[in-house]
Amino acid sequence: MSETTGSLADFNAFRAQMNDLVLGKGNLTINRFFALDSRAYEPGALGTKTKEMLGLVASMVLRCDDCITYHVVQCAEQGVTDEEFMDVFGVGLVVGGSIVIPHLRRAMARLEEVRAQEPAGRSKQ
Amino acid sequence: MSETTGSLADFNAFRAQMNDLVLGKGNLTINRFFALDSRAYEPGALGTKTKEMLGLVASMVLRCDDCITYHVVQCAEQGVTDEEFMDVFGVGLVVGGSIVIPHLRRAMARLEEVRAQEPAGRSKQ
Amino acid sequence: MSETTGSLADFNAFRAQMNDLVLGKGNLTINRFFALDSRAYEPGALGTKTKEMLGLVASMVLRCDDCITYHVVQCAEQGVTDEEFMDVFGVGLVVGGSIVIPHLRRAMARLEEVRAQEPAGRSKQ
Amino acid sequence: MSETTGSLADFNAFRAQMNDLVLGKGNLTINRFFALDSRAYEPGALGTKTKEMLGLVASMVLRCDDCITYHVVQCAEQGVTDEEFMDVFGVGLVVGGSIVIPHLRRAMARLEEVRAQEPAGRSKQ
Amino acid sequence: MSETTGSLADFNAFRAQMNDLVLGKGNLTINRFFALDSRAYEPGALGTKTKEMLGLVASMVLRCDDCITYHVVQCAEQGVTDEEFMDVFGVGLVVGGSIVIPHLRRAMARLEEVRAQEPAGRSKQ
Amino acid sequence: MSETTGSLADFNAFRAQMNDLVLGKGNLTINRFFALDSRAYEPGALGTKTKEMLGLVASMVLRCDDCITYHVVQCAEQGVTDEEFMDVFGVGLVVGGSIVIPHLRRAMARLEEVRAQEPAGRSKQ
Repeated sequence: MSETTGSLADFNAFRAQMNDLVLGKGNLTINRFFALDSRAYEPGALGTKTKEMLGLVASMVLRCDDCITYHVVQCAEQGVTDEEFMDVFGVGLVVGGSIVIPHLRRAMARLEEVRAQEPAGRSKQ
Repeated sequence: MSETTGSLADFNAFRAQMNDLVLGKGNLTINRFFALDSRAYEPGALGTKTKEMLGLVASMVLRCDDCITYHVVQCAEQGVTDEEFMDVFGVGLVVGGSIVIPHLRRAMARLEEVRAQEPAGRSKQ
Repeated sequence: MSETTGSLADFNAFRAQMNDLVLGKGNLTINRFFALDSRAYEPGALGTKTKEMLGLVASMVLRCDDCITYHVVQCAEQGVTDEEFMDVFGVGLVVGGSIVIPHLRRAMARLEEVRAQEPAGRSKQ
Repeated sequence: MSETTGSLADFNAFRAQMNDLVLGKGNLTINRFFALDSRAYEPGALGTKTKEMLGLVASMVLRCDDCITYHVVQCAEQGVTDEEFMDVFGVGLVVGGSIVIPHLRRAMARLEEVRAQEPAGRSKQ
Repeated sequence: MSETTGSLADFNAFRAQMNDLVLGKGNLTINRFFALDSRAYEPGALGTKTKEMLGLVASMVLRCDDCITYHVVQCAEQGVTDEEFMDVFGVGLVVGGSIVIPHLRRAMARLEEVRAQEPAGRSKQ
Repeated sequence: MSETTGSLADFNAFRAQMNDLVLGKGNLTINRFFALDSRAYEPGALGTKTKEMLGLVASMVLRCDDCITYHVVQCAEQGVTDEEFMDVFGVGLVVGGSIVIPHLRRAMARLEEVRAQEPAGRSKQ
């Protein structure tokens, strides 16, 4: 049942299926929250790339693997480089402490997985 | 070793086996805590149904999947309807934020699993 | 500058002043979140009284004094009795542990303050 | 109303007054929890000094100033030296991260206050 | 004793005094952590402005008022505009939920205090 | 991809592989944090055994299964007995509340796994 142990494809499939199930229940509070969650990362005074890095570091210090996975994917799509990812992880590690380390390890594994699926040269941006 | 990835039957089996192991160690503090944890949901000024919903929302904002599973099962036994579950999840989501969403997805999957095991019509209560 | 050390009147004044300042900035994400936060406690499958108790126990296990203050006031307005408050606090304490105790003490002080401001007999409901 | 801004004497007075108020309500779950909380630090396989240091580091990583104050006082009574306090704080800081630093500063201020009230030479133990 | 209720000047004075006291104890783990905490925000693949916004959103979702105060000051020195601050707060609010709101109110009050001390026109950058 | 569901050998293999990957990126903040994390448990005013028990209880109340696994292994190597483990778990449970219970169950399973791999008589120390 879990999202945390499978591949990125498994994660995405479970996420899509369960989001549909949740939204299909028609609870207005929940459905509005999901809409708001999407729009929070749209460009404003800060661009989407910066906002996604904010979402990533927040997910890291709150230690949510699925949230980290989601924002790693989004950050990679925004062109965040490996060196920039490490800077985000570094701030998250210092603020959040060693308790963050297991999530950092899994974030690295996800980043590897994402990079392996990118067209050649993408991570060199 | 984990409880989080298997079926409800796996969860219950691991939970029973490990509770026995823990309680068998005879640590007085731990054993009394387990007894207290059971009695906290017995009817008082508030009934068990309300207390179980309180336990569920607390588990959701603290983001503990196994605790959510436990209280989803207990709430279902107390006759909590799907619409009431969504209201509990909605409060948990607004208070706890988007970091709660992955746990909400897994809570929905558990609820589906629980409903599938109920005698016909139970979820219509 | 703090909201946590003053009277209920101080809390309400600071809260109103700062909410105005925040909302006046016109950030769409933040303003929509505030609107959503209000509507989450409106009656649905569960009534406002139950939803406010859910908000209170969630605030207690997350250990936010100002959130506790807010929901204690709302619960009192919904007719939650002292015995029901203690049941909510009891679930919060067992789920959240002894780390919750200082917040329980301050919640009790707030409840006393709220009761002292109620018309005679209100807490006997 | 707060316990966090005053002297140790203020903290103790508010704590005693509110504990009386809470326990006087006669909620069985809460009253049993308070009793269990006391006995958790009684000597067992580990002595009280070690258990109080465990309570202190747990309070530090969970970032509860009042809990830290309580365990600093208890640890000092158990003869924990300044160097041992710093070792406990060091583990708490590395596990919990920089978010712990403001609580570490207040813990130091409390320790100074406790040492100032001890008979001469106590902190040299 | 608290840092959270006073002015920015009070905060800075207590912070400096207690940091001196902590570092003067000579605990190698703690002193190295403090050094590491400083260097985490130095420019790397990401600039200091971005890193300070990461530190701010992490402090907000972890709900540490003193950490928020520190990063609000640092962000303002890096030229973060009011609109950018609101975007950071918006991401923190959506990720962390309504439990973040009291800290958002205090962050706004700190930002006002910081702006009032800036040379004319600074916040227009 | 997860570390939490496999055997201790799986945990150690993933941990070593990912630590190498992280450290190989050469981010100075992260690499220094890892070094600091190791030295925090070296003997000082408190011995390594006590420090590892502090790390274990901190990991338990912060509810990080991988951190718990790591410190259970280290504590066992330092000669912590089953009775002492239960005392550490008892403090963690009372401080952290019932939300800790699923992690306590997994900690017990890990301890069993560790004991099964020890030379005969080790757990009788």
